[in-house]
Amino acid sequence: MIDHGGNLDVARARFGGELADWIDLSTGINRQPYPVPQLPAHHWHALPSRAEIEALHAAARQAYHTTAPLLATAGAQAAIQMLPRLAPPGSAKILAPTYGEFGHVLRGAGWVVEDASNLDALAGADLAIVVNPNNPDGRRHDPAALLALLPKVGRLVVDESFADAVPCLSLAPEAGRSGLLILRSLGKFYGLAGVRLGFVLGAEADVAALAQLAGPWPVSGPAIAIGHRALLDRTWANATSARLAVQAPHLDNMAQAAGWTLVGGTPLFRLYGVGDASAAQERLARAKIWSRIFRDWPGWLRLGLPGDEAEWARLAAALAR
Amino acid sequence: MIDHGGNLDVARARFGGELADWIDLSTGINRQPYPVPQLPAHHWHALPSRAEIEALHAAARQAYHTTAPLLATAGAQAAIQMLPRLAPPGSAKILAPTYGEFGHVLRGAGWVVEDASNLDALAGADLAIVVNPNNPDGRRHDPAALLALLPKVGRLVVDESFADAVPCLSLAPEAGRSGLLILRSLGKFYGLAGVRLGFVLGAEADVAALAQLAGPWPVSGPAIAIGHRALLDRTWANATSARLAVQAPHLDNMAQAAGWTLVGGTPLFRLYGVGDASAAQERLARAKIWSRIFRDWPGWLRLGLPGDEAEWARLAAALAR
Repeated sequence: MIDHGGNLDVARARFGGELADWIDLSTGINRQPYPVPQLPAHHWHALPSRAEIEALHAAARQAYHTTAPLLATAGAQAAIQMLPRLAPPGSAKILAPTYGEFGHVLRGAGWVVEDASNLDALAGADLAIVVNPNNPDGRRHDPAALLALLPKVGRLVVDESFADAVPCLSLAPEAGRSGLLILRSLGKFYGLAGVRLGFVLGAEADVAALAQLAGPWPVSGPAIAIGHRALLDRTWANATSARLAVQAPHLDNMAQAAGWTLVGGTPLFRLYGVGDASAAQERLARAKIWSRIFRDWPGWLRLGLPGDEAEWARLAAALAR
Repeated sequence: MIDHGGNLDVARARFGGELADWIDLSTGINRQPYPVPQLPAHHWHALPSRAEIEALHAAARQAYHTTAPLLATAGAQAAIQMLPRLAPPGSAKILAPTYGEFGHVLRGAGWVVEDASNLDALAGADLAIVVNPNNPDGRRHDPAALLALLPKVGRLVVDESFADAVPCLSLAPEAGRSGLLILRSLGKFYGLAGVRLGFVLGAEADVAALAQLAGPWPVSGPAIAIGHRALLDRTWANATSARLAVQAPHLDNMAQAAGWTLVGGTPLFRLYGVGDASAAQERLARAKIWSRIFRDWPGWLRLGLPGDEAEWARLAAALAR
């Protein structure tokens, strides 16, 4: 098992408390999430219909500014699970450090996986992986630089799970080009990680192959209904982007006042250099605030943005202690 | 794409009407489904935790009377999608006629697939598939006969998607034996097809391999919460089994009065010989009742059980016309 944020089980086992006592800032999942509406009962009971799935796909194309083939999956993770099946195992290069599941899944399926430290070093790979903006350090890549890389690799996967609040970074309008696959997620910006909904955008043959691997009903009826509504709600998305743009620097100010330094981040999470990350995590955990630290980078601590006023106040108090 | 029941899109395109106008009897999905409770918001927003997934697994073990390793999947279909990956492609034999997805998925993954007409003919296969009780004809197999087959095949998959109402047929108490895989579903008996929740039960190594293929969050938070509750609710399950035991023969009586003959069935659906199935389907469809017919068996029509009194009355009227 790969280490992930969102593991409140671990936090509770170590520091006690009920689930409701904790503020989970260990992920980049928006804590002011898209409001889930009351759902017509048939979404729970009937098999999702082709018409409902097609309407969801159309909403995603509209939200992501693309006309490319795409497929709804049970989160971006479900698309990652299928990536190794698009071609016989070969060489994969991953722009690192990043989300651990890519390397884990590819190695498990027989691929030879190497980390790369810059875009140029990805050239020559059968499969190149870039997360844009990157998790955990927020590193950003110019879409033009990614397009320039495309002809130099077998396939280029760009994971845009954190791109909703920085749409200028998205390659989705270029999706459909041979060899380019783009992953999107409803888990982070929309705060709907439990719903398990994401998309893979790509060339027609790749999307068709992924659809075969995913089977006829890869996402739930409620996911389809909620996702459809969320993706078409530009008012909510614009307000959320505006809120995050104000609040992320506010979190940085609080962190800097606590002696931490900004390493990077996206509007949904920030990565700080904190000295002893283990000690910093413990300090927050005693206030029932859970954060993410990294085995390989013992000075880094990642924080998602708190939700309501009360959460911001609790974090401020914990940082000031 | 394989032809499935539940395709109300097709029904509406051919015969008109809104979704709510139709009674969909084209599947074996219970139309008096398990009531979906109001869910705590965190199931939508947070990633499902290991503790929640383990609690769901424990509930499934209790419901299925087993202590074997098992894995929650996005419906039995998600387990079917992974089956071809458990071993290098070889020879698969499927007890036919049955659910079309097994052959479709295995052929797509490079397996050589043969239909078999009886259990003995499955011997020698690298992968043998039995649906028990079978869809669409309700054929039943003695668990002892299936256990006797187990040493004669590489792996034996028993799809028990329709076994909830006939628990005496289930091999789940024998799960854990090497080579035996059992599929269960929350879609049919519980009427929760839109939730996408099922289980695969098996030997430790197989379940571990499937868990790797499925990834860390294969089912949604709401699916975990609802499934957990439904599987532990024996009062509802017992009442539903009792209701189906009365209502299935009642449907047979109505069908026989209309001149149809019973081919077979389970408590959740019945298969009738109706002469010209296409004409019979059309007759029901004009009353906005959708049924399932089969390209390869032009005399068969499958009907699920209606839900409330009003649905039974509409079906009775349509059959009497």
